[in-house]
Amino acid sequence: MIVILKPGVNHDMRQPLIDWLKGQKLGVHISEGDYQTVLGLIGDTAHVDMDLIASLGIVDSVKRVTDPFKCCNRKFHPEDTVVSVGEAKFGGGNFAMIAGPCSVESEEQIVTVAKAVKAAGAQLLRGGAFKPRTSPYDFQGLKAEGIELLKIARAETGLPIVTEIMSIEHLSLFEDVDVIQVGARNMQNFDLLRHLGQLRKPILLKRGLANTLKEFLMSAEYIMAGGNEQVILCERGIRTFEDYTRNTLDLAAVPMLHQLTHLPVIVDPSHATGRANLVLPMALASAACGADGLIIEVHNDPMHALCDGAQSLRPEEYAALAEKVRAVREVSAL
Amino acid sequence: MIVILKPGVNHDMRQPLIDWLKGQKLGVHISEGDYQTVLGLIGDTAHVDMDLIASLGIVDSVKRVTDPFKCCNRKFHPEDTVVSVGEAKFGGGNFAMIAGPCSVESEEQIVTVAKAVKAAGAQLLRGGAFKPRTSPYDFQGLKAEGIELLKIARAETGLPIVTEIMSIEHLSLFEDVDVIQVGARNMQNFDLLRHLGQLRKPILLKRGLANTLKEFLMSAEYIMAGGNEQVILCERGIRTFEDYTRNTLDLAAVPMLHQLTHLPVIVDPSHATGRANLVLPMALASAACGADGLIIEVHNDPMHALCDGAQSLRPEEYAALAEKVRAVREVSAL
Amino acid sequence: MIVILKPGVNHDMRQPLIDWLKGQKLGVHISEGDYQTVLGLIGDTAHVDMDLIASLGIVDSVKRVTDPFKCCNRKFHPEDTVVSVGEAKFGGGNFAMIAGPCSVESEEQIVTVAKAVKAAGAQLLRGGAFKPRTSPYDFQGLKAEGIELLKIARAETGLPIVTEIMSIEHLSLFEDVDVIQVGARNMQNFDLLRHLGQLRKPILLKRGLANTLKEFLMSAEYIMAGGNEQVILCERGIRTFEDYTRNTLDLAAVPMLHQLTHLPVIVDPSHATGRANLVLPMALASAACGADGLIIEVHNDPMHALCDGAQSLRPEEYAALAEKVRAVREVSAL
Amino acid sequence: MIVILKPGVNHDMRQPLIDWLKGQKLGVHISEGDYQTVLGLIGDTAHVDMDLIASLGIVDSVKRVTDPFKCCNRKFHPEDTVVSVGEAKFGGGNFAMIAGPCSVESEEQIVTVAKAVKAAGAQLLRGGAFKPRTSPYDFQGLKAEGIELLKIARAETGLPIVTEIMSIEHLSLFEDVDVIQVGARNMQNFDLLRHLGQLRKPILLKRGLANTLKEFLMSAEYIMAGGNEQVILCERGIRTFEDYTRNTLDLAAVPMLHQLTHLPVIVDPSHATGRANLVLPMALASAACGADGLIIEVHNDPMHALCDGAQSLRPEEYAALAEKVRAVREVSAL
Repeated sequence: MIVILKPGVNHDMRQPLIDWLKGQKLGVHISEGDYQTVLGLIGDTAHVDMDLIASLGIVDSVKRVTDPFKCCNRKFHPEDTVVSVGEAKFGGGNFAMIAGPCSVESEEQIVTVAKAVKAAGAQLLRGGAFKPRTSPYDFQGLKAEGIELLKIARAETGLPIVTEIMSIEHLSLFEDVDVIQVGARNMQNFDLLRHLGQLRKPILLKRGLANTLKEFLMSAEYIMAGGNEQVILCERGIRTFEDYTRNTLDLAAVPMLHQLTHLPVIVDPSHATGRANLVLPMALASAACGADGLIIEVHNDPMHALCDGAQSLRPEEYAALAEKVRAVREVSAL
Repeated sequence: MIVILKPGVNHDMRQPLIDWLKGQKLGVHISEGDYQTVLGLIGDTAHVDMDLIASLGIVDSVKRVTDPFKCCNRKFHPEDTVVSVGEAKFGGGNFAMIAGPCSVESEEQIVTVAKAVKAAGAQLLRGGAFKPRTSPYDFQGLKAEGIELLKIARAETGLPIVTEIMSIEHLSLFEDVDVIQVGARNMQNFDLLRHLGQLRKPILLKRGLANTLKEFLMSAEYIMAGGNEQVILCERGIRTFEDYTRNTLDLAAVPMLHQLTHLPVIVDPSHATGRANLVLPMALASAACGADGLIIEVHNDPMHALCDGAQSLRPEEYAALAEKVRAVREVSAL
Repeated sequence: MIVILKPGVNHDMRQPLIDWLKGQKLGVHISEGDYQTVLGLIGDTAHVDMDLIASLGIVDSVKRVTDPFKCCNRKFHPEDTVVSVGEAKFGGGNFAMIAGPCSVESEEQIVTVAKAVKAAGAQLLRGGAFKPRTSPYDFQGLKAEGIELLKIARAETGLPIVTEIMSIEHLSLFEDVDVIQVGARNMQNFDLLRHLGQLRKPILLKRGLANTLKEFLMSAEYIMAGGNEQVILCERGIRTFEDYTRNTLDLAAVPMLHQLTHLPVIVDPSHATGRANLVLPMALASAACGADGLIIEVHNDPMHALCDGAQSLRPEEYAALAEKVRAVREVSAL
Repeated sequence: MIVILKPGVNHDMRQPLIDWLKGQKLGVHISEGDYQTVLGLIGDTAHVDMDLIASLGIVDSVKRVTDPFKCCNRKFHPEDTVVSVGEAKFGGGNFAMIAGPCSVESEEQIVTVAKAVKAAGAQLLRGGAFKPRTSPYDFQGLKAEGIELLKIARAETGLPIVTEIMSIEHLSLFEDVDVIQVGARNMQNFDLLRHLGQLRKPILLKRGLANTLKEFLMSAEYIMAGGNEQVILCERGIRTFEDYTRNTLDLAAVPMLHQLTHLPVIVDPSHATGRANLVLPMALASAACGADGLIIEVHNDPMHALCDGAQSLRPEEYAALAEKVRAVREVSAL
């Protein structure tokens, strides 16, 4: 960690800070420039409160030299982590596709869609049972019943199931779920992350709407620090001023994360764009820049069938997408 | 709700949508323009899935005419809500000041600061027991012990206490807390909000880093829909591209919220700016634009005392601030 | 245009607005709902000041039903525009690659790079002569001399040249430039755009850092309204809170723009990411989602050659990229 | 300037960079940590290309220790700059109010409004002659004629006039204008700034929609580097995800800028919020946090008079605002 002092801070003014740092068992290397003095802290700075030091009147700024994330850091674990779910594998050159409806609505619906997406090439089934909704008056999902219906669809198709958890108190309901999803709004629900770190099953962690990649990795770190190393990261768009698309898909996050971490990174083009006709191009783009998988909304709903062009894809559109994605992956392997 | 169809959508193409809407017990008023047709939906549209309709291929866009928030909407409740905590009151022309350290560290620390902020004019004591930290390796607070120390400080000073909850599973520890704070990262932890709606005590709800005012009000709505009407809203800065300040304090949110809702609105200039020397000007600005209170970090820490200028204010700085805030409020009452 | 009145606005309150609208030769269709009244404006609303109406006390909100852009709107011009520069073509299924150094530095440098990028497959040469720099103390480019050196490189290689204009007063220097680039900071320099609309040569218009797609298209409209229809749009990243990459490449803008406009859309992955090792994956992603071309920084600089990994690509890296881009385009044609 | 090398970069790998830096006449101080090496550059680093160094493969990051702005930097010029226009003064404890209509429409209009705002306490008259409009089809202002009408209003009232310039080619028309305004969209129109630096009259520089405070100051630096020291900075809202208000007024920028620069800082609450009923509270907040002036839209338009509540204030509303602003300034002087 490097502490840059303000111009004009002399020996006497800085000594209390240096003494305090030494009291925290850090070596302090002093480098005096023409204008400003720089302190280099030597030792284990992971526990040093960077904000506290930055807030001091004599300090211009503080810069962390070492990354605050350890378990998920590629520097300390150069090989890709491969997360396996049944026969599907994410990472290390493997690619897997998750598909299914936004919400589980009925046994007939989820089984029908499950069969359709399996036929189209999906390896995992997604479906919302607990739905985080902005409004308390909107449909909140079938909850426990929704999870049971997902299990029925799994029994009928063999597809492992992925569904979102919203609260620690529902954890027992997720015992037989194959991949537990943490939604964007819960990316910094640290207590939830800590509990998931105690499990030994894959966690699909979605990036928060306004979170940096560093914060994203720190949330993965919460899970991994508990010993659960099976974390799949998912880029799903960030909030910006642009309003044609629901969010702004930050696709450069995929190769950037691959440099920073060994964890697999997948993309959710459905939620990121909110527009069905953007899902195909952004799925291809995701594959081209090295994503380790895709999670895509597919429906089988008469209302949509009638009107064409809803946000979710129809099974036949998804099948066409899956084929093109495979072709792009073949030629673009980085 | 108004549904604007795309140009060229004819009678046959739109009929399935109109039938579906009527099936949801809505009246549909059709207005044909030169280029486009507009459907006006009449009846209770609160449960209509706006995103679903917007996603249809024949729909250009959808606009909600009525607000999705009810309980907190000023239209249906024109008088200000006044939230009382001991002798302090927020809203309806009342102003209250909350102060205290970022974290509870020890009995000596919290009692000393409590006495100091009381002397300086604060009416409530804040202090973090459960601390949401980006990193799992950072200090996470004294937890249950921290709450006990806050109670001791309350016993010594008479100041009601405000502290943050991070998870439903800790709810029992907060039984004797006067005001429960929901932090920015949990603003859309809907299960937590729902549980707090079952309580009958004041909730201090902080705006999320990337949340619109509408989403902020919908989160208040989650609490109020459960019957708990004592919600205090807190603007604490949003995430933008600017990096001189930690966040961007969106102060226009104060008068804007006052138009939209009858709930009291306070401001946290300490977290919004992250710089002690900006706390005074932004506290005065908050008072000038009609805020119903302030929550400010005050410390009493030898490390900071030595170095001057930390992010938190010293008690004497806080006392000077409190006096100026009173003067500004007197002349600017809107 | 649709004007939604506030609840409780009665006949007398709305009449002055209706009269004013009729005075502007618009038909007004009144639709009274249970809660609110909606006015549908019929006729040519392109000149109606939407902000003015929205600001009225009796108005809840205003929504434009028709797009404000005409010349660049795909609705009125369904076929792709193809912009040709020498043998290179952008749009309509054609793809062209622009490459070269950030700044023109010397004859030797620009000729060497031009030969290298031509050999690697680039069809146009880029190089900055006038450089917009945040600081007045930074290198501002070789200016007129830089343009002369670009012409020499063109003579040596046959590659058409692309370079940025910063001010109307330099327009005469650009007479013999093949494609004039408008940088992100000048996207809303409306006087400059208007002058470029008088020309009959291709304009490469970069999206502003904080501009929506609608604003981007309106700036293209400024050029096209003058009669110059040869506009190439360029997505180059927008400003967000994320700071690992220099900007956030909004790649979904490519297929979104293709829906909204018939103009070709290219991508600049070099400026968007600011990191050489992200240029290849984002170039492939651009090709996969349907971009009509790429503009990429390539250098040939001993300082960089020594240290490896600078922001620009080396010619051999660019050649490898060009080959992969071709392969991705072949399999992903949408 | 501090250059932090990546972990594992050894002596041989870093030597070319060090040689190159020394070739630029910089001293290089090498500080080797346990994990990483830090280079401290000594000498005049103002011309060193920070981005270039940051882009090198062996470099982790670069941090500028000294500010890149000189002329406007408070460190080198501790006393407030006072900009005088007629009897009005901005800065150094002085406060001045600018008011007037968005656009100059006619002689009658501008003279009537000028008299009204003068009576209400305004010291300068604003009015748009050249209007930057997103759409080429919107009203672009009366241009040269508008400036002539402003001069007539000045002759009638004695109020100095403030109006916006959009292009260098119009410069001669602004010879007799008292304060030349640079709009948000032109904040980084560097050629325009450079020309204004050659003048010796006050420039009102508005912050760009997506520009940081550092970029804002660098644009002021462009003007001052030419010798024109009369720059008034204006905060007018930045672009964020929030959409209730037109932009997000970043009011903490006022005290932050006062720390960084000696230039006066004013606020435009009309454009920042886009809502007339937010202008008063945000004007008071601006005064409370130390702004040196306000620029506010005031109209006198029958259409608005009929409908009440338009974005601009009516003269009597403005008069009430001016009185309250004075009261807040008196008690809040920091």
